[in-house]
Amino acid sequence: MSAQATEEIANHSGLRIKTLAVIGVGLIGGSFAAACRKAGIVSHVIGAGRRPETLAQAQALGLIDEATTLEEAAVRADLIFIAAPVGAFESIFTALASKLNPDALITDGGSTKQNVVAAAHAGLKSRIGQFVPAHPMAGSHEKGPQAADATLYAGKRVILTPLPENKADDVARIQAVWQACGAIVSTTTPAQHDGMVAAVSHLPHWIAALFMQHIVASQDSALKLQTAGTGFRDFTRVAQGSAEMWSDIFMANRDAMLRELKDLRAVMDRAEDALQHADQAWLREMLEAAAKSRAEWPGNQK
Amino acid sequence: MSAQATEEIANHSGLRIKTLAVIGVGLIGGSFAAACRKAGIVSHVIGAGRRPETLAQAQALGLIDEATTLEEAAVRADLIFIAAPVGAFESIFTALASKLNPDALITDGGSTKQNVVAAAHAGLKSRIGQFVPAHPMAGSHEKGPQAADATLYAGKRVILTPLPENKADDVARIQAVWQACGAIVSTTTPAQHDGMVAAVSHLPHWIAALFMQHIVASQDSALKLQTAGTGFRDFTRVAQGSAEMWSDIFMANRDAMLRELKDLRAVMDRAEDALQHADQAWLREMLEAAAKSRAEWPGNQK
Repeated sequence: MSAQATEEIANHSGLRIKTLAVIGVGLIGGSFAAACRKAGIVSHVIGAGRRPETLAQAQALGLIDEATTLEEAAVRADLIFIAAPVGAFESIFTALASKLNPDALITDGGSTKQNVVAAAHAGLKSRIGQFVPAHPMAGSHEKGPQAADATLYAGKRVILTPLPENKADDVARIQAVWQACGAIVSTTTPAQHDGMVAAVSHLPHWIAALFMQHIVASQDSALKLQTAGTGFRDFTRVAQGSAEMWSDIFMANRDAMLRELKDLRAVMDRAEDALQHADQAWLREMLEAAAKSRAEWPGNQK
Repeated sequence: MSAQATEEIANHSGLRIKTLAVIGVGLIGGSFAAACRKAGIVSHVIGAGRRPETLAQAQALGLIDEATTLEEAAVRADLIFIAAPVGAFESIFTALASKLNPDALITDGGSTKQNVVAAAHAGLKSRIGQFVPAHPMAGSHEKGPQAADATLYAGKRVILTPLPENKADDVARIQAVWQACGAIVSTTTPAQHDGMVAAVSHLPHWIAALFMQHIVASQDSALKLQTAGTGFRDFTRVAQGSAEMWSDIFMANRDAMLRELKDLRAVMDRAEDALQHADQAWLREMLEAAAKSRAEWPGNQK
């Protein structure tokens, strides 16, 4: 969507957010607040979260205008963005539910969607229709409000997984907010979302972490690490992510991960068999196909 | 080594190369020629190789001064650098052997060392002592003389795997040449070298290629590739390498690769078992250890 089109939505179709509440004012939440401000669609930002010092830091940085409780956020906000660890979602939804402004919408930044939707049902109950689940495919190894960046979502994909209980207008409004933050929005079901991210995001993290463990536990590991070059560097980069966040993700997306691991194992077994039998023609064909797919991947230039 | 120290070696300890012959004038060979020229240690560079047009291009780019046959290179050169596909090494050694200047030294850029040493024994026979095997841990996805870069080896590791037949002075001379190209030189045995690179270079390439194949062959592959972000990008980057080169490497380093795959499988099975049994404490501890190892890896800032 062009900047002009975004501007028109902001001015003419009710995109303007009087009060935005951000639950969890770290990288993801702080960047969302900053992006909404930059797009000129928000008047006032309130923040809530576990740690008073993080809220104070976010306020000092101008990401939020004031810190409040969850209950006060529920009463006052017309848009609520939840950017907390996924394990905390159910209690956040429960705290919001009873006080929730009937016109308010909720969206989120959780990396898995089926478990977030289950938490929303459990916490929001009859207010479930006010929640439009989202997963912004953007991040950084940096953490906290000081890492927040108004352009974090610019050009990045955000996947919405709307619920049967959502009104079409509400889904369109959440989509327009994410587009105003610069994101490219697509829509799928929670189950399909979780299968896709298990494959292209969670599985690489899993393998990179286990590969690091394999190297560190092996003979000559210090020499090996000294020898390792740029291929190793890129292949293992994601293994640096937060263990807290990633163990939550793997547990939340366990079924899809186990399916992915089973399918990958079949591919790896076939290739190991070819190597064992010195079937170089097969290996070369496989490597050519892989190189071609990777070179043609649309994200190659990113 | 400081520039001044390099200069001293060049001037005072016989590092100066009267005639350098480069066999295979692509990225690796062309960069070696350019780096030796930049260090001021070479007077004249001759090139040999399969394709006349590549030699003409290397000459036009000033990487080599003239193109010759292998036999003429053997007669005239006092240093020969072999940067051909490893599969061609034995016939190159054979062509060089009978005409080889008795004072000449040979080094190489091959990615595996046990098979190169075997090819050198078969081809060079009694002249085996004149060959000091090397593996520069540097490269690029770009190919050919036009990709050659005098700084390709600057700050990069070069692993020497000297042979029992080498004279200590000759090993020192080859080490000094690589250092003059800017490389950080370390020394090990061919077998240990092959084990190390199987672990930190060949195994990541293997997994990245098979992971690409797994994604492409799976349900919703187009959607998945559209969704994939920067983690996917870095994890799969090496899968773009040349299928010809990499199938050679996997075949050449088959035993070490099969050992690596067996050990990695044990690590992955243990982790899958933890995921299957929802052992989040184990997962978190594993992820924390992996993140710590990766963050502490000395190459992290590269």
